[in-house]
Amino acid sequence: MSFVEGLQCRECGRRSEARAVHVCEDCFGPYEVVYDYAALRRTVTREKIATGPRNVWRWADLLPVDKPVTGFHSGNTPLRRADRLAEVLGCSELYIKDDSANYPTYSYKERVVSVAISKAVEFGFDTVGCASTGNLANSVAAHAAAAGLQCFVFIPHDLEQGKVVGSQVFGPSVVRIKGNYDDVNRLCSEIADKYGWAILNVNLRPYYTEGAKTFGYEIAEQLGWKLPKHTILPVAGGTILPKVHKAYQELIDLGLVEDSNGGSRFYAAQAAGCNPVVTAIEKNIDVIVPQKPRTIAKSIAIGNPADGFYVYNAIKQSGGHGASATDQEIVDAIRLLATTEGIWTEPAGGTTLAAAIKLIKSGRIPKDESIVIGITGNGLKTIETLGGSLPDSEPIGASLNEFDRRLNGKASIEEAVLAGAI
Amino acid sequence: MSFVEGLQCRECGRRSEARAVHVCEDCFGPYEVVYDYAALRRTVTREKIATGPRNVWRWADLLPVDKPVTGFHSGNTPLRRADRLAEVLGCSELYIKDDSANYPTYSYKERVVSVAISKAVEFGFDTVGCASTGNLANSVAAHAAAAGLQCFVFIPHDLEQGKVVGSQVFGPSVVRIKGNYDDVNRLCSEIADKYGWAILNVNLRPYYTEGAKTFGYEIAEQLGWKLPKHTILPVAGGTILPKVHKAYQELIDLGLVEDSNGGSRFYAAQAAGCNPVVTAIEKNIDVIVPQKPRTIAKSIAIGNPADGFYVYNAIKQSGGHGASATDQEIVDAIRLLATTEGIWTEPAGGTTLAAAIKLIKSGRIPKDESIVIGITGNGLKTIETLGGSLPDSEPIGASLNEFDRRLNGKASIEEAVLAGAI
Repeated sequence: MSFVEGLQCRECGRRSEARAVHVCEDCFGPYEVVYDYAALRRTVTREKIATGPRNVWRWADLLPVDKPVTGFHSGNTPLRRADRLAEVLGCSELYIKDDSANYPTYSYKERVVSVAISKAVEFGFDTVGCASTGNLANSVAAHAAAAGLQCFVFIPHDLEQGKVVGSQVFGPSVVRIKGNYDDVNRLCSEIADKYGWAILNVNLRPYYTEGAKTFGYEIAEQLGWKLPKHTILPVAGGTILPKVHKAYQELIDLGLVEDSNGGSRFYAAQAAGCNPVVTAIEKNIDVIVPQKPRTIAKSIAIGNPADGFYVYNAIKQSGGHGASATDQEIVDAIRLLATTEGIWTEPAGGTTLAAAIKLIKSGRIPKDESIVIGITGNGLKTIETLGGSLPDSEPIGASLNEFDRRLNGKASIEEAVLAGAI
Repeated sequence: MSFVEGLQCRECGRRSEARAVHVCEDCFGPYEVVYDYAALRRTVTREKIATGPRNVWRWADLLPVDKPVTGFHSGNTPLRRADRLAEVLGCSELYIKDDSANYPTYSYKERVVSVAISKAVEFGFDTVGCASTGNLANSVAAHAAAAGLQCFVFIPHDLEQGKVVGSQVFGPSVVRIKGNYDDVNRLCSEIADKYGWAILNVNLRPYYTEGAKTFGYEIAEQLGWKLPKHTILPVAGGTILPKVHKAYQELIDLGLVEDSNGGSRFYAAQAAGCNPVVTAIEKNIDVIVPQKPRTIAKSIAIGNPADGFYVYNAIKQSGGHGASATDQEIVDAIRLLATTEGIWTEPAGGTTLAAAIKLIKSGRIPKDESIVIGITGNGLKTIETLGGSLPDSEPIGASLNEFDRRLNGKASIEEAVLAGAI
């Protein structure tokens, strides 16, 4: 049973029943799902949650779906205490929330797609789709295949190979668009209207975005029902950050965590080549000025983020901030995370870690407080980003002599490694 | 506390204390770990297991490690009821055990590496390594990075890009060898001897292989403490199949599952271009004749499998069989699994499904009995395998008109898709 009361416009407050609509008929503001929190307060306890499944539907009471049809292995990703990385950064309590492990297509998008596809089926749609920078397309294609739904995904023409093949393999219609994500997104609005399809992040957006809350719920439960003092997340269209903020607020309201020290501060990470939200935060002006993206972090290259304003608000409300990362800083951060923690993320994750490093070094995030860095995508999809930057060496013959020579006669292996012989 | 009694030679039965040795000093047979099963029978119950962690260490009592140092998010992968695939194949009860989701490097190797690295640290090694066709190297590199160990991985020179970068990113010394896996493996034996390193799948092999049992334990628990009637697994070096067979036997011996109908039958899947074990099975002769591999399924292209003989034995003992798949059948099976179940596997997984299809079609595996297909690796690492075979189309401009034209004026979307317009 769902606790949904209906939709409410985030701008003018107009109420509506829950249906496949995302924009307020009065003021064109975005609709958001509202719940019966009084009933939730009576129903949802830590004990009840503990008996739930270990996937996104553990949080079903707090999601706008009556009958889940997919996502039974999505969510429940690792929260890893990252002590080796923390040592490099001089921090005392650092965690990685690792959605590069999310199933089945290895990004945080499984969360929003599990909810949105289930809702689409509930509404009676038989065709689902999305506008995507890659990860969302992968996820929609995989979940749609498993659910037996017809599927169209729309992507910019110049995505990484892993993300293109990673949609095509599941058998949807993959439509490449000459343009950037913002062009694709505009086209998808028109397509949703004309063809009556469930374009999950367009006309099902109020339901879709709710799925992102599970990222925050999991962090709190995994920390033993505590909130971290600082949460750093990447910003693309602006879904995840405000929704994790909402998730923390809901947990406080429902009495599931204590709001000690005024809750968690939120921080936005963007690539320097596409940072409309961080620019607004730094200028302290709540107007997001669109940009033309130019960055290797293609999955977050959204110049005109649908929910950028709400990212800004959540950050200011929480007392947080933002930071941008250059392409080189992104690659360096990917490598740092991989070599210290054995986690390989895509450029979006590199951006988030690079931004976290800046915020920690500048003193904005104190080193002695708990910090969660949100990793939202997997490095296997963006191999070309690293291809040239990693140490490589010529093959040797399959003989001990050749290996000895490669070690170069150094007294110790350590010396040989340091000397760059290996 | 570990229940290990020591090592025992699989050939002559010689006993040894548990140490970093893999070959019997008397007869050169392989050592295997033996346990105090009487004590295990008194200790291990379904209830005790249910309170354990949700990772490979859930099975710590049945593994040869005192103090785990890695693998705390490895294992515990989905067992998925595959009804859409089953419908295509005409089966009634089909499951995919999906180690393409295994963490942190998305193959079944996390299981053996978690055990072997923990054991290496216990033995006092500070350098770990492996001979690998890619997945093992990825896993060793990632776990070693997270554990702060020095690491060397040895791979054939011609692996897929995803597997090469997927090791390099974690910062080990990646040594490419001019030759195939069997050449790499021979060299690694010499290196282990000369340098005193823990080459996990060579001199720590008795401990390493035990980790593969967790694949089988999980299947049984996920089926509600039942064994499937039929289990199909890929064969490369020959680790996983005999160890899953052993896992099932142990569960029967410990009274954790019932041995109804004489246990589970095992089936080997190999690529037609490298099928020494399947050839032996088909000829019904327990001699594995080495081959020169020639297949797109590089991760299982091992022409001279270390434990091929034990694969043969387990299959014959269980009443199972084997089947081979051509490169085209492998690609077709990858696409079938992706489009029906939303699971993207590498060629090894395509091989396993293709072999299963043959065994089902030929009647060797009855359609009305429970079947588990073991998927051991992830398609994201082998993009080049599919690159050319998937439907693709030219980008269109970002306008509704262009999309309408792409749909080609067909009366319905279904028609347009069928006509190949999308």
